[in-house]
Amino acid sequence: MSDEQNKDKQIHRRDVLKWGAVAGAAVAVGASGLGGLAPLFKPAATASKQSEDKNEQIVPFYGKHQAGITTAHQTYVYFAALDVTSSDKADVISLFRNWTSLTQLLTSGATLSGEQKNKYMPPQDTGESQDLAPANLTVTFGFGPGFFEKDGKDGKDRFGLKDKKPKHLADLPAMPNDNLDKKQGGGDISVQVCADNEQTAFHAMRNLIKQSIGVCEVRYLNKGFLSGGKNGETPRNLFGFKDGTGNQSTKDENLMNSIVWVQSGEPDWMTGGTYMAYRKIKMFLEIWDRSSLKDQEDTFGRIKSSGAPFGQKKETDPVKLNQIPADSHVSVAKSTGRQILRRAFSYTDGIDPKTGYVDAGLLFISFQKDPDRQFVPMLKALSAKDALNEYTQTIGSALFACPGGCKKGEYIAQRLLES
Amino acid sequence: MSDEQNKDKQIHRRDVLKWGAVAGAAVAVGASGLGGLAPLFKPAATASKQSEDKNEQIVPFYGKHQAGITTAHQTYVYFAALDVTSSDKADVISLFRNWTSLTQLLTSGATLSGEQKNKYMPPQDTGESQDLAPANLTVTFGFGPGFFEKDGKDGKDRFGLKDKKPKHLADLPAMPNDNLDKKQGGGDISVQVCADNEQTAFHAMRNLIKQSIGVCEVRYLNKGFLSGGKNGETPRNLFGFKDGTGNQSTKDENLMNSIVWVQSGEPDWMTGGTYMAYRKIKMFLEIWDRSSLKDQEDTFGRIKSSGAPFGQKKETDPVKLNQIPADSHVSVAKSTGRQILRRAFSYTDGIDPKTGYVDAGLLFISFQKDPDRQFVPMLKALSAKDALNEYTQTIGSALFACPGGCKKGEYIAQRLLES
Ligand code: HEM
Ligand code: HEM
Repeated sequence: MSDEQNKDKQIHRRDVLKWGAVAGAAVAVGASGLGGLAPLFKPAATASKQSEDKNEQIVPFYGKHQAGITTAHQTYVYFAALDVTSSDKADVISLFRNWTSLTQLLTSGATLSGEQKNKYMPPQDTGESQDLAPANLTVTFGFGPGFFEKDGKDGKDRFGLKDKKPKHLADLPAMPNDNLDKKQGGGDISVQVCADNEQTAFHAMRNLIKQSIGVCEVRYLNKGFLSGGKNGETPRNLFGFKDGTGNQSTKDENLMNSIVWVQSGEPDWMTGGTYMAYRKIKMFLEIWDRSSLKDQEDTFGRIKSSGAPFGQKKETDPVKLNQIPADSHVSVAKSTGRQILRRAFSYTDGIDPKTGYVDAGLLFISFQKDPDRQFVPMLKALSAKDALNEYTQTIGSALFACPGGCKKGEYIAQRLLES
Repeated sequence: MSDEQNKDKQIHRRDVLKWGAVAGAAVAVGASGLGGLAPLFKPAATASKQSEDKNEQIVPFYGKHQAGITTAHQTYVYFAALDVTSSDKADVISLFRNWTSLTQLLTSGATLSGEQKNKYMPPQDTGESQDLAPANLTVTFGFGPGFFEKDGKDGKDRFGLKDKKPKHLADLPAMPNDNLDKKQGGGDISVQVCADNEQTAFHAMRNLIKQSIGVCEVRYLNKGFLSGGKNGETPRNLFGFKDGTGNQSTKDENLMNSIVWVQSGEPDWMTGGTYMAYRKIKMFLEIWDRSSLKDQEDTFGRIKSSGAPFGQKKETDPVKLNQIPADSHVSVAKSTGRQILRRAFSYTDGIDPKTGYVDAGLLFISFQKDPDRQFVPMLKALSAKDALNEYTQTIGSALFACPGGCKKGEYIAQRLLES
């Protein structure tokens, strides 16, 4: 045995004890059909010292809720929607089994790679994250309306799951100023991967997509970033404004229960779950950058540099509706009296050939327990009178139902797919 | 004066003393035609404690050489090529003056923003990096052949600078297996922005592009990432192999003088400069991921997991040409006996409609003092017999001449543009 192999073995042995959960998951991978390859995996190297580096941190996988929803902000996202091409529910079940195992491994800082005995087989893991720390990696799965009913409402009950379709799961209503590209919206399954390092996030997304070959095809794949300030300041979006201020604290369980988490009144598998609204919104940077500071601030009703609402001093001071323009984004959103949990990222996509300026915008993502009562009214109000509309255009739109979390031995969406 | 304004003023006063260089640059911005706006800027907040966080670090701007060439690896890149649309050399001079001031400000952790008196003017700075640390930000400028001679060799001497054209600056020769997209290669001016945070890098690129409006148009804009391991391991590319192992130490000045830095034999402005080769190379991930570990390792002549050359133990052990396949990438590159400094990044670009798999590859960037003797022979050898060609295809190609660095009071490329 070479030194190389020997070292792998040692890490393996020592860490199997430490990483019981990981080892369990690795066996599950072996058992659930990746076949042919030994259920090997490479656990995260044991950190020799406690590190405060964000890159070293692990977000727990198991729990009542999926991670990546009320998880503290992460800097990078890969967001994909997939369409199921298989008509066999068993394929979907084995995909979610494999996805669960892989997600559990990767988010705990392990990978599928390690000592590979048969060099004539492709590696299980693509390898580019082998030396990387988990970087707060999370993966969040959801189901679009088409997963339950193919080809629109009252369409085909493709997997016999129509009676388990969540109450509020339907395509978002079209807004008059939308300019939707069908291939940038919709989808049967959503996969949101977040991490504090792009390569870590990409690696997870790539290997999840790899596992889906033959069962799904990828409809779209986007990526984004959003950096918080060095002293914990709220991140700024590409209009230079702090984004997320109006969110309620994700640490307040009661608030999250009232805004985000489904508790009852939905099919059982949605308990502890939520709905994810997705909008890909182009932001016209070249028009924005030529607008006066006054116009920019009037658009939001907040001071650009501090983030404070007009008439107030600090970012976190309460918004006074009578002090901010009635058509400002914040006024219109707030006046609906509804609440959602926003978790957006900026995207950039080279040069817009039309303007010669950067093609960029927001991957708007929000979570809410009842999109019909929370998100849709807000969308309608904003669409009708938001001053921000002058500088933006929505090109992609989707709604997904995210199942609750799972505990050891279960897989994500098990209560939907089996029972 | 509000608290808000007062606080800005204080930072301003205290930091003008501390940030002499920054203040100088800010004045230069005022003087060089951004006009109308007071030469205000917002210096980086004084760090209250020394931080080892990579995000907090500053790469010095002034020096014999431009930064971003032998600078230690940074995780994110934005890379743009611009074409000059103005025919007036004075425009180019004032662009490089402004670019130098802005680059000096941003790389030192300051921004152009701050207290803005006239709210009826657009902000000078787009604002999204206001709270971010410098994150080792660097900007590296270069000139393509078309900057000297418009419309190909022996073309128009557009700025009267033809006699200052570097000796080896010409389009790279076409390789038989290239599949070049003209709009993804070439360009009069290259701008490479690197940082350990994407938002910091994007902010710099966006504001540099903003300054170029009316003088240049953007030909292409790409972005990439490449993460080193958590214990300082060499970063891995999207084929899962360590990338950069064969590079000579950038800390060895003699080696860098022999490989990278022009010392003589070139127009004066190239002293301390270098040539940058750029290749946008698609990597066929879906074919790669289906290839056996053996095929993958044979392609490079190195062990995937450790990075060690065949027949050796450690990544850094010397390559023995008789132990690795003759058509392996490393064998072919090494057998040329030439050396270059590679500084590549991975890119991902959504889904490739042809394969349904991730569209991705390498933004290959290398620096060398004589592309004709160093880079081109390697390119030809690799193009003829590299086993890697089965898995890759070059879609963009360019060569740029990067001027030497500048000292306080000068601007980048001054010795080229004036004298
Ligand atoms: C490119 C598109 C958008 C941009 C740039 C944007 C930006 C902002 C900014 C800067 C704020 C103020 C700070 C904060 O509270 O986070 C804000 C608030 C808010 N936005 Fe947006 N937003 C966009 C789209 C949307 C959409 C599509 C919705 C929902 C349909 C939405 C809902 C909200 C809500 C609910 C608030 C908080 C209002 C309050 O203070 O209660 N935004 N947005
Ligand atoms: C997608 C394209 C490419 C990939 C994935 C790739 C990857 C690699 C890898 C994994 C290595 C071995 C580790 C190392 O020394 O860094 C390597 C070495 C090297 N590559 Fe590439 N490379 C690519 C394109 C190129 C191109 C276009 C050139 C130059 C024309 C080049 C020149 C070299 C050189 C000089 C070495 C070092 C050989 C030695 O050990 O002396 N590579 N490359």
